[in-house]
Amino acid sequence: MSKVRLIFLGTGGSIPSKKRALPAIAVKYLNTAILLDCGEGCQYRIFEAGLGLNKVKTILVTHMHGDHVLGLPGILQTYAFMGRSESLVIIGPRGLKDFVESVLSLVPCALKYKIDVIELDKKHYDVIYEDKTYKISAVEAEHTIKNYAYLITIKEYYRKIRDDVIAELGLKMSPELYRRIIRGEVGFIEACGKRVPMYQLLKIKSKFKIVYTGDTRPCRAIVELARGADILIHDATFSCELNEKARATGHSTAAEAALVAKEARVKELVLFHISARYSNASKLLVEASAIFPETILPNDMDEIERDV
Amino acid sequence: MSKVRLIFLGTGGSIPSKKRALPAIAVKYLNTAILLDCGEGCQYRIFEAGLGLNKVKTILVTHMHGDHVLGLPGILQTYAFMGRSESLVIIGPRGLKDFVESVLSLVPCALKYKIDVIELDKKHYDVIYEDKTYKISAVEAEHTIKNYAYLITIKEYYRKIRDDVIAELGLKMSPELYRRIIRGEVGFIEACGKRVPMYQLLKIKSKFKIVYTGDTRPCRAIVELARGADILIHDATFSCELNEKARATGHSTAAEAALVAKEARVKELVLFHISARYSNASKLLVEASAIFPETILPNDMDEIERDV
Repeated sequence: MSKVRLIFLGTGGSIPSKKRALPAIAVKYLNTAILLDCGEGCQYRIFEAGLGLNKVKTILVTHMHGDHVLGLPGILQTYAFMGRSESLVIIGPRGLKDFVESVLSLVPCALKYKIDVIELDKKHYDVIYEDKTYKISAVEAEHTIKNYAYLITIKEYYRKIRDDVIAELGLKMSPELYRRIIRGEVGFIEACGKRVPMYQLLKIKSKFKIVYTGDTRPCRAIVELARGADILIHDATFSCELNEKARATGHSTAAEAALVAKEARVKELVLFHISARYSNASKLLVEASAIFPETILPNDMDEIERDV
Repeated sequence: MSKVRLIFLGTGGSIPSKKRALPAIAVKYLNTAILLDCGEGCQYRIFEAGLGLNKVKTILVTHMHGDHVLGLPGILQTYAFMGRSESLVIIGPRGLKDFVESVLSLVPCALKYKIDVIELDKKHYDVIYEDKTYKISAVEAEHTIKNYAYLITIKEYYRKIRDDVIAELGLKMSPELYRRIIRGEVGFIEACGKRVPMYQLLKIKSKFKIVYTGDTRPCRAIVELARGADILIHDATFSCELNEKARATGHSTAAEAALVAKEARVKELVLFHISARYSNASKLLVEASAIFPETILPNDMDEIERDV
């Protein structure tokens, strides 16, 4: 059984404080990492965590507010200096591509790798990206500007063949084909006019689901996205006394995050995007835990590791 | 006698290392600060130094490479969140204004303060900006793209009147006018069709000169700019074995920085923009000190304080 590791690089929001940097989370699984948002300075934190910047293959940006996206140009430039050659996928709302292209043209550097920006504008995406290990889905959340909440599904497989898919494709199983499938060969198989990724011929053993909301009010779309998830990382900018402020600024209180977690029946809730006003955020944890006991509130650079 | 305080927020270059963040220096004098370059994460360092982000009135950008400028958008956004109302002066090469405007339009925030971007394109500026306390000059240095080296002159005054200027302007000295000048009133005085800042009627007691080169080869323009300066902060990316690399990338070795310091007869040399390859940079200090003994090599967050 493999482990997924979540490193909370920055857990604050809007403005940094001495205790909390701007939002960024690394999701490390096997030999790759996905970065959730890119607050300023997250490249330093990735170095500090010993994660290896080049492990990052995909960056998910929830929305185009500076606290979530201004660490991105620095990472792209550092990749250029490091001579990265592997392509990078960046997913986010419309405006992201223009931002990346503008910064890279105004602040010149010699890029030797391909940046593939995928811009979202629909309300719901069942699959934005999928490979053998990851599937990425998204829904539009409720913030002051367009913000996407992401679901990352991590898949583990048995060393067993899916006979139903074999039959459907009319494939004749040979010892050679069997070996290719079982050893997890990358690539596609073509049959009956269909082109199917090899990993789809393997039986799925488990799925581990992580939802990250970015900045949002509690909302139906997130409850649906997070239903049964293993980990829900939810905006919890304020405590419940400031619920009017949360509403006015498009954020959630810790209690509201807990109610979403409860309704979606997730396994664990992570309170995130903590306002700089809380030099001690334990009241947010107490407030949420009263509603949803399986709640944690990480500090910067805290890590959690879970079985997939 | 007042003190000037230099805080080396980030002393590395190109890519950050665990020991050295990207370039940024705060020059604090009386109740204001000037920021020299704006490497990613410098707003965090300013908080950490207890400097007060709002103390920064002027930002000098040497050139438009990412390691020197990508901390700027985050500062501008944090000012917006903090409700800054005081205007901010940002000085740098052509392209800076476009960068600032593009980022602020692509990553929206509600700015309530004025940003005054001054773009440079000439080879030499005796005065880019001057007030009672500061005078800022610049020359074009020698890097792979246009890079300006800056001279900051900090002025202190006697409580004495400059009789020559009074005479030249044909001013009739009254006890009231005397008091206004002596107490250092801000503003202008008009006489003989001239409009003269009040501080120009006071006798200068001392000038403290700080030169910051940004990224550069050793060059004549910097020797002239730095002549007799109190502090020269010079590019010292490499040690002398890598002098070919320094030449090819538009940087200087520690020895080359020391030769500039010696020729310009500055009081102190600060080695800066240290390559991430030096986990221990003492060889750079040894190399420069052999040529110019009054050399220091600060680590991140080191401070020096000098009498003006």
